[in-house]
Amino acid sequence: MLYFESDYTEGAHPTVLAHLIDTNMEHASGYGTDPFCEAAKQKIRAACNTPDADIFFLVGGTQTNRTVISALLAISEGVIAADTGHIALHEAGAIEHTGHKVLPIPQKHGKISAETLAAYLKAFYADENHPHMVQPGMVYISYPTEYGTLYTKEELSSIHAVCRTYGLPLYVDGARLGYGLASNKADLTLSDFAERCDVFYIGGTKVGALCGEAVVFPRGNAPRGFFTTVKQNGALLAKGRLLGVQFDALFTNDLYSAISRHAIDCAAYLRSVFSELGFRFYLDTPTNQLFLVLENAYMRALSAQVRFSYWEPYDKTHSVVRFATSWATEMRDIDALRTLLMNNLPLQNA
Amino acid sequence: MLYFESDYTEGAHPTVLAHLIDTNMEHASGYGTDPFCEAAKQKIRAACNTPDADIFFLVGGTQTNRTVISALLAISEGVIAADTGHIALHEAGAIEHTGHKVLPIPQKHGKISAETLAAYLKAFYADENHPHMVQPGMVYISYPTEYGTLYTKEELSSIHAVCRTYGLPLYVDGARLGYGLASNKADLTLSDFAERCDVFYIGGTKVGALCGEAVVFPRGNAPRGFFTTVKQNGALLAKGRLLGVQFDALFTNDLYSAISRHAIDCAAYLRSVFSELGFRFYLDTPTNQLFLVLENAYMRALSAQVRFSYWEPYDKTHSVVRFATSWATEMRDIDALRTLLMNNLPLQNA
Amino acid sequence: MLYFESDYTEGAHPTVLAHLIDTNMEHASGYGTDPFCEAAKQKIRAACNTPDADIFFLVGGTQTNRTVISALLAISEGVIAADTGHIALHEAGAIEHTGHKVLPIPQKHGKISAETLAAYLKAFYADENHPHMVQPGMVYISYPTEYGTLYTKEELSSIHAVCRTYGLPLYVDGARLGYGLASNKADLTLSDFAERCDVFYIGGTKVGALCGEAVVFPRGNAPRGFFTTVKQNGALLAKGRLLGVQFDALFTNDLYSAISRHAIDCAAYLRSVFSELGFRFYLDTPTNQLFLVLENAYMRALSAQVRFSYWEPYDKTHSVVRFATSWATEMRDIDALRTLLMNNLPLQNA
Amino acid sequence: MLYFESDYTEGAHPTVLAHLIDTNMEHASGYGTDPFCEAAKQKIRAACNTPDADIFFLVGGTQTNRTVISALLAISEGVIAADTGHIALHEAGAIEHTGHKVLPIPQKHGKISAETLAAYLKAFYADENHPHMVQPGMVYISYPTEYGTLYTKEELSSIHAVCRTYGLPLYVDGARLGYGLASNKADLTLSDFAERCDVFYIGGTKVGALCGEAVVFPRGNAPRGFFTTVKQNGALLAKGRLLGVQFDALFTNDLYSAISRHAIDCAAYLRSVFSELGFRFYLDTPTNQLFLVLENAYMRALSAQVRFSYWEPYDKTHSVVRFATSWATEMRDIDALRTLLMNNLPLQNA
Repeated sequence: MLYFESDYTEGAHPTVLAHLIDTNMEHASGYGTDPFCEAAKQKIRAACNTPDADIFFLVGGTQTNRTVISALLAISEGVIAADTGHIALHEAGAIEHTGHKVLPIPQKHGKISAETLAAYLKAFYADENHPHMVQPGMVYISYPTEYGTLYTKEELSSIHAVCRTYGLPLYVDGARLGYGLASNKADLTLSDFAERCDVFYIGGTKVGALCGEAVVFPRGNAPRGFFTTVKQNGALLAKGRLLGVQFDALFTNDLYSAISRHAIDCAAYLRSVFSELGFRFYLDTPTNQLFLVLENAYMRALSAQVRFSYWEPYDKTHSVVRFATSWATEMRDIDALRTLLMNNLPLQNA
Repeated sequence: MLYFESDYTEGAHPTVLAHLIDTNMEHASGYGTDPFCEAAKQKIRAACNTPDADIFFLVGGTQTNRTVISALLAISEGVIAADTGHIALHEAGAIEHTGHKVLPIPQKHGKISAETLAAYLKAFYADENHPHMVQPGMVYISYPTEYGTLYTKEELSSIHAVCRTYGLPLYVDGARLGYGLASNKADLTLSDFAERCDVFYIGGTKVGALCGEAVVFPRGNAPRGFFTTVKQNGALLAKGRLLGVQFDALFTNDLYSAISRHAIDCAAYLRSVFSELGFRFYLDTPTNQLFLVLENAYMRALSAQVRFSYWEPYDKTHSVVRFATSWATEMRDIDALRTLLMNNLPLQNA
Repeated sequence: MLYFESDYTEGAHPTVLAHLIDTNMEHASGYGTDPFCEAAKQKIRAACNTPDADIFFLVGGTQTNRTVISALLAISEGVIAADTGHIALHEAGAIEHTGHKVLPIPQKHGKISAETLAAYLKAFYADENHPHMVQPGMVYISYPTEYGTLYTKEELSSIHAVCRTYGLPLYVDGARLGYGLASNKADLTLSDFAERCDVFYIGGTKVGALCGEAVVFPRGNAPRGFFTTVKQNGALLAKGRLLGVQFDALFTNDLYSAISRHAIDCAAYLRSVFSELGFRFYLDTPTNQLFLVLENAYMRALSAQVRFSYWEPYDKTHSVVRFATSWATEMRDIDALRTLLMNNLPLQNA
Repeated sequence: MLYFESDYTEGAHPTVLAHLIDTNMEHASGYGTDPFCEAAKQKIRAACNTPDADIFFLVGGTQTNRTVISALLAISEGVIAADTGHIALHEAGAIEHTGHKVLPIPQKHGKISAETLAAYLKAFYADENHPHMVQPGMVYISYPTEYGTLYTKEELSSIHAVCRTYGLPLYVDGARLGYGLASNKADLTLSDFAERCDVFYIGGTKVGALCGEAVVFPRGNAPRGFFTTVKQNGALLAKGRLLGVQFDALFTNDLYSAISRHAIDCAAYLRSVFSELGFRFYLDTPTNQLFLVLENAYMRALSAQVRFSYWEPYDKTHSVVRFATSWATEMRDIDALRTLLMNNLPLQNA
């Protein structure tokens, strides 16, 4: 079996694991007050060029989203997101569970535009019934998006400008941030994000850690009582070191970038293989997730030998599927896939 | 420095860590659908003698409490707990955050009694205003309690009988369950808990794991949609394997019991040292947590060389402190403490 | 000025007001335990042919929706509604505030169909990611809908059948129930609703009361602790008599039907006037709300002399507006409107 | 039967009712945008000497408490209240339902003191575990308290000073505010409250209205989106006029004060009757609620002819009961009670 199902099918990157092993028996105080967390925070502040940033380590993405969003919104407010946004669809109503509505707006390939956002806000406030509706309280975007696409610096700046006009905090879900930053098509850096949003998180779970997401409030602008809010949401580990040690490893010697780059290189090779063999791309993605349109019978046959993710129906006889690479992908896996596709399963993918 | 601050100051037990290392590069599907979780569940079912149990792996204690309690209560209901219960005091209002009140009742050394519980419920329903008040919806106890004390089988059975009379689910917080079961004073087993409560959790974080708690619904009685509820609470890991691998290790060859027993043996030795040297115990605890009354100046001097937990004021000149052992405690640490207490800091603890 | 803005621009129907006046100084116990509430409940049970119904009087519609819906859903669940449903748009996120997502599905003129509902549910459960999404927990429809349209008995029965297949309670928002039942096009009665849904409410605020909605659980099927839930939601009046007296009046001598019928007769006359004068209807509605398409400049001119509701943009130069009749509308108001439209503001509504 | 059960057993004060009758058929826009609400707001601003106050009319007390408190607190925060506070005991967990814990502190006869409050806050922040606990976010007091007692101006000022020191908003629940202000023992006025707290409400339900409470943010300091929050909590009436008309009447010609004064005069006479006849007072209250200690058999006998409220057990053979007067009490009712107590039920109240 070959594995391209997702970027969370293995454990930790070996360097991250090694740091866990090396530090395992060191005594450290609990709840994120340990020296590993402190070291990791300093390294992240340096990487983001934000010496005053408030940084918190949480465990997973849905948890991070619900905790950050509910901490920033007033109770009369909701969060604007692409209608394909992870919080809008696949987080089990975690945002609503905190009492807030997700306000979906149209997107293209997972990206919202400053124009769409501005039009939505203008129309909202023009409606005389708007006080009877959920008030827009912040904007959520993901980078890369759920479709593996990327915002440009100009697009992000424009969205940020609309947010400032309306006084809305901008939050970037970076579950796969590394894979976005490492893309050849990316023109954004960590410090660009720090300048253009009010809070973002650097995903660990899908970029080499066993678990863990680093929330960055770039200007020391964490809401009052945020530590308590984290605990209240069940997101505070007694052994907070588990997260500190991993992010310490990820932000030492630029490991986070290096392993992300590896996944991007693998994705580029994988993309070239699919192109060479005449596969049909559902959309053009510059990151570690590739979306193909496969004929349904072919898809089923292929799934007996290769693991990938079913995404959504395309038409009556075809489906969209996702192939993902990660820090753990090996070039020889792609070679093996190429061989398989050429010899064993010649393309019948009409 | 000597460390008796808590049972979560090191990483994972070496055997648990070894299993993480061994399985690190194995491919596995996400969100708890991996074979490690499955294996761990089967071993826990066997250990509890509950072949039909529903088992879920969550990440930490506060998270587990909020998820389980909010899933069991109707919205008009609250959870009865000792007024010293962890959920009543030290979980940042996580239960209230889910919309439910903690209904505190009196305790002794952290334990509630069937009599107190029955009296509370009788008085509640006798009050003609009771429909205007939060309805009792379940009962929460901890084993061991926050004061390291244990319920006997008879006490647990009596509490369970009261719960059944009033139709209230009984939930046992087992953050330190291993240390309770391993105590010489314990007359309860995992299967005794399975028979006498509606849901309990087996603590991993404080008993050898990096993180993780195993929630057991002994009779397959998980509430409808509980998987979704876990996700909604931010308690579902993408790499659910992290929890499965650890519990698989803990429930192989009875490791969970063995390392708990070690902590109890260490506590017994530590207790004998304190007794020998004339220290004053705040209360008699049969588990891995010892509570002493120290004179304040002495306490401060001692804390320069030994780490322990401040608990609460005792009187104007004394404080209650906690010394904890764990799977990671070594007998030589206790020897070193004994030497320190005898030679360097002779007892001035009036 | 002529008033067709809505059905809540006056106080109480004179007969309702008279009953308030007559009973004003009678002593009565609080919180809905008074004899007026009891009499009103009995009359409603008789009107619905549901001798075992649980009936609760709440104050307003949004409050009723949030209280009923949150009491019926498990925490992992959301409520399915038309994407034009009042709870989806114009209740300030009250449902989400209780922790639950509104799951919007497509509608036509405010009505969902059994086919659309069944297709949604089939697709939901066919998606292998569905446990990561909000679980459908109940179905909400409104009668009349927000667009003044009506379900037929066959349509309601079909929706109910789909609900039963999937185990979902069906809830009918009857804010304007009287105006629906009184329509010439209606083939549903109160007892038809009682047979075909799990809970519905009979709107008072818009049908002759100062405030008040009667929630009916037809088979004594109120969720456990519902009285407490009502209080918790701030929906329990100390002077519960205010609601009991009004519903007692409304359900004495069939007043509720009579005044609803009056509004429908007024609407029929108003419809004939608009037709006669060549106005363009946005959609055909059989109840007390008429929707017209007006040219924007004409709309503004008209609004100087007639009050009506702006509804939504139609195209660049036209808007949809609503004219509503009620128990308080007088035929001479419509005569006056007709004269105005014919003489003072001849139709320039291109 | 004689009625001293509570101050909400009749409908509206005749002058309030008359205003409802007079305005019943006037057309007015919905949701509190009507001229009656506007007039009432202006009169309340004048009465409070707060020209910039934000004023909102809500329907009932529990609803008002949950709406105001949840709008002011950050999600990590709870509300400090007397352990006898209405929100702590008798509001069905409405505060917790919004996600916030009530933090009870000791009181005497329903009153907290600045000293107790300061001591609580000092101890809270001195506890190094305080970030793991619910953060104090505001202070709630009631005036009169649930035991009918009153804060002096000095006491209120001292509590306010502590609140300012810790940055905590002070909120006064004035469900029976009129009866407090009208007491002979009161040295506080509406404008004194406006100066010394951040938000308070003027109770209507128990002081002559059918329903309704006026929330005052004295310095225009309503939290952002509060109108939407009111709607979200189900507290916004379509016919908002119902509240506006009533408060307009209550604040015209000082009716609110006059009818409150009447209740106080009645209470004074009732107190003198009980004193004359040797009854035992549970505590000395200067407002419209009198608390007596009655022997249990006597209490039961008396309840056959007089309605009063059972309050709580006193000892094995006695109970505390409450007699309340209101705007609706007539002096002849008290005469009748006196005769009854003297002739028919000579005091056996040992």
